Amino acid sequence: MKKIEIGFLGCGNIGGGVWRMLCDMHREIENRDGLSIHVKRVLVKDVAEALALNASKGLEVPEEVLTENAADVTDDQDISIVCEFMGGEQPAARFMTRALENGKTVITANKVALALNWAQLQAAAEKSGAGLWYEASVGGVIPVIRVLTTNLEADRIDRVMGIINGTTNYILTRMTKEGKDYAEVLSEAQRLGLAEPNPEADVEGMDAGYKLSILASLAFHGRVTYQRIYREGITDISATDISFGREMGYTLKLLAIAKKDGNVVECRVHPTFLPSDHPLAMVDGSLNAIFIHGDYCRDMMLQGRGAGEKPTSSAICGDIVSAALSLKPQYPSFKNTPEDCESFEFTDNWQTSAYIRLSARDEKGVLTRVAGCFAQEDVSIASMMQKNASDDGRVQLIFITHPAPEQAIRRAIAHFDGSICRLETMIRVEE
Amino acid sequence: MKKIEIGFLGCGNIGGGVWRMLCDMHREIENRDGLSIHVKRVLVKDVAEALALNASKGLEVPEEVLTENAADVTDDQDISIVCEFMGGEQPAARFMTRALENGKTVITANKVALALNWAQLQAAAEKSGAGLWYEASVGGVIPVIRVLTTNLEADRIDRVMGIINGTTNYILTRMTKEGKDYAEVLSEAQRLGLAEPNPEADVEGMDAGYKLSILASLAFHGRVTYQRIYREGITDISATDISFGREMGYTLKLLAIAKKDGNVVECRVHPTFLPSDHPLAMVDGSLNAIFIHGDYCRDMMLQGRGAGEKPTSSAICGDIVSAALSLKPQYPSFKNTPEDCESFEFTDNWQTSAYIRLSARDEKGVLTRVAGCFAQEDVSIASMMQKNASDDGRVQLIFITHPAPEQAIRRAIAHFDGSICRLETMIRVEE
Repeated sequence: MKKIEIGFLGCGNIGGGVWRMLCDMHREIENRDGLSIHVKRVLVKDVAEALALNASKGLEVPEEVLTENAADVTDDQDISIVCEFMGGEQPAARFMTRALENGKTVITANKVALALNWAQLQAAAEKSGAGLWYEASVGGVIPVIRVLTTNLEADRIDRVMGIINGTTNYILTRMTKEGKDYAEVLSEAQRLGLAEPNPEADVEGMDAGYKLSILASLAFHGRVTYQRIYREGITDISATDISFGREMGYTLKLLAIAKKDGNVVECRVHPTFLPSDHPLAMVDGSLNAIFIHGDYCRDMMLQGRGAGEKPTSSAICGDIVSAALSLKPQYPSFKNTPEDCESFEFTDNWQTSAYIRLSARDEKGVLTRVAGCFAQEDVSIASMMQKNASDDGRVQLIFITHPAPEQAIRRAIAHFDGSICRLETMIRVEE
Repeated sequence: MKKIEIGFLGCGNIGGGVWRMLCDMHREIENRDGLSIHVKRVLVKDVAEALALNASKGLEVPEEVLTENAADVTDDQDISIVCEFMGGEQPAARFMTRALENGKTVITANKVALALNWAQLQAAAEKSGAGLWYEASVGGVIPVIRVLTTNLEADRIDRVMGIINGTTNYILTRMTKEGKDYAEVLSEAQRLGLAEPNPEADVEGMDAGYKLSILASLAFHGRVTYQRIYREGITDISATDISFGREMGYTLKLLAIAKKDGNVVECRVHPTFLPSDHPLAMVDGSLNAIFIHGDYCRDMMLQGRGAGEKPTSSAICGDIVSAALSLKPQYPSFKNTPEDCESFEFTDNWQTSAYIRLSARDEKGVLTRVAGCFAQEDVSIASMMQKNASDDGRVQLIFITHPAPEQAIRRAIAHFDGSICRLETMIRVEE
């Protein structure tokens, strides 16, 4: 029996969940893997508070295990694996770096700290020979990190596309199914604990952006920093557009999209209409799903719970056991060779179709003029729908374009004459 | 740069595909992983034939690499990884055992040889410390082997359910979409090379059975031999039943199902109706998909190409690179502890719903008598549909039951009085 001492940085919902799972599965992990895993120290902000909170949750973490001093975890000689559950960029990234420098393998679910400090963490891990594991940082229990770095390690991936933020997917799913407005569903989600009191990181697409930075870097074998990711949130989405899109056969999702063609890389997070029979269009509520395409693997889809105490604990404990069985880092870092990385060319002129809704004066010739704006930029129309005039005497014109360069679509929109027709919405469409 | 010499046993479609992928990706694998992978020897039946065939396929395997002597691969001092592409149980299993005994890591896509000789292969690997890798043996490019043995290693899996045979899924998809009969679609599939000239292993569910034996063994951490798997093929499926099922909201798939409840394990491969909006019901054609449920991970679905030269090569090359990066076996073997394995109790009395089609004389009281047969065994009816009398003056009665024990359903069926009503079909339904 191999005995492994581990330490926790933080013990909130996820840390508590991992503690519980390790207790529940202790005997099975001993039998299966010959590993006895023991949590030696747990960093908390305030021991007295933590004891009270744990008692209220029925979580039996002994008082002598708790500490308010990070070094008791990151510098302990006996501890070989440090699990970080603090969330947020700092001090999490500093503590993880310290643990790695001390030769301790680090396991984290923290996409912010990882996406923004990857180079520093990787350098510390390589220097000391420690491992850095982060399966739970993207897509919860979805095994996308391991699949990209092992199963697909010899493949050439050109597309990763996913629903990787549960909060926005929950909000869009309810807006779609119930026809409710964004603000109403958001406040219900907040009441149910499914959205944060300050929901910005989720609804503005930042969370999905951090995750896409990690996915794209691994898929394309070169660093794709968070700053390279184009980002648009869901705060301006109206029930009207969701409903019009549906009539035309499309379902709205907040998609994270990374594509690579030669050295040209595009990375973007934005609301996206998908054909309603697309597999990703059917991924509802708090589910996450990630679609991968490569030269050899072709199309693959991985789907599962993107959040929640138990699924996240499952991913983390899988990392703990794998890390414990192997003292070497298991996720190969990408090499910064010119071929593979620095030569990336980032584009903001991707090919995309678009759903475009205009409100226009209800008079002759308007359609001709709008069509002219599109034609001027070689953007061709795949389908059109007109909705009758409302109280303000304007009609709604809805277009779905054929794929065209992003910038051509933007120029076409800029040609619209505000006095006659006004852009209400532009949403990209992925077929 | 770490140089790795590998050998192939066999060089048909898959072996040729792996050869091509290793050539194509050689430089990228060097950059990413610091590995230079070189194929030293390739076993073929007949060198002259192989040269001619390779030339016709544009596959440039030098003559001096080819050999008709298995020992040139399994006993070569320089070769550290042996990839088996022969298919069939023997001599593949013997050759793999020999290579493992010689301390060579073995990579295989051969579910038959693995399912039927696992204990022997595992023992040889453990004795010499060699690795045994088989990601491509189940579900092609779907990463289910690695996910079960690493990501979910600390979890308690209670259900694995999948579409893991592409040939039958292709046949059932076309029967469903085109209303054609089994025999017609089968002969078309054979003409297109999508079904073997002797299709028995696929259409009788044997192939899915071998794969389920591997999946269930890993998921439940105990050996589930092929002999333990209940198996029913698709040869008796009629277009009529597929069509009636659809009217009632169900889609027919050949499902491989493994469930564990405490120590009670059920493993079965049979045609299954799924609600038409079930994610697995939408997996069409040659796609494979595997649904996993566990205490912590909850529900997860993995989907991808189950066969084909490129997807299979992707899975195998992922194994080659991972194996080369690690000289230790990566897939932990299950321990034969009493808790985990020998105490399994295999049941053939699983809970299932059933679609039951009867033809009955068109006269009063028939429905009452049929209902009585169900009631006698406490099988309750969820829905019923009657189709008008055809030429023979008999009506078709179709029932979908609520979940009930398999044996109760069988007893209920046995009560039907053949002179008044006759069982035409019984197909299990999974909700």
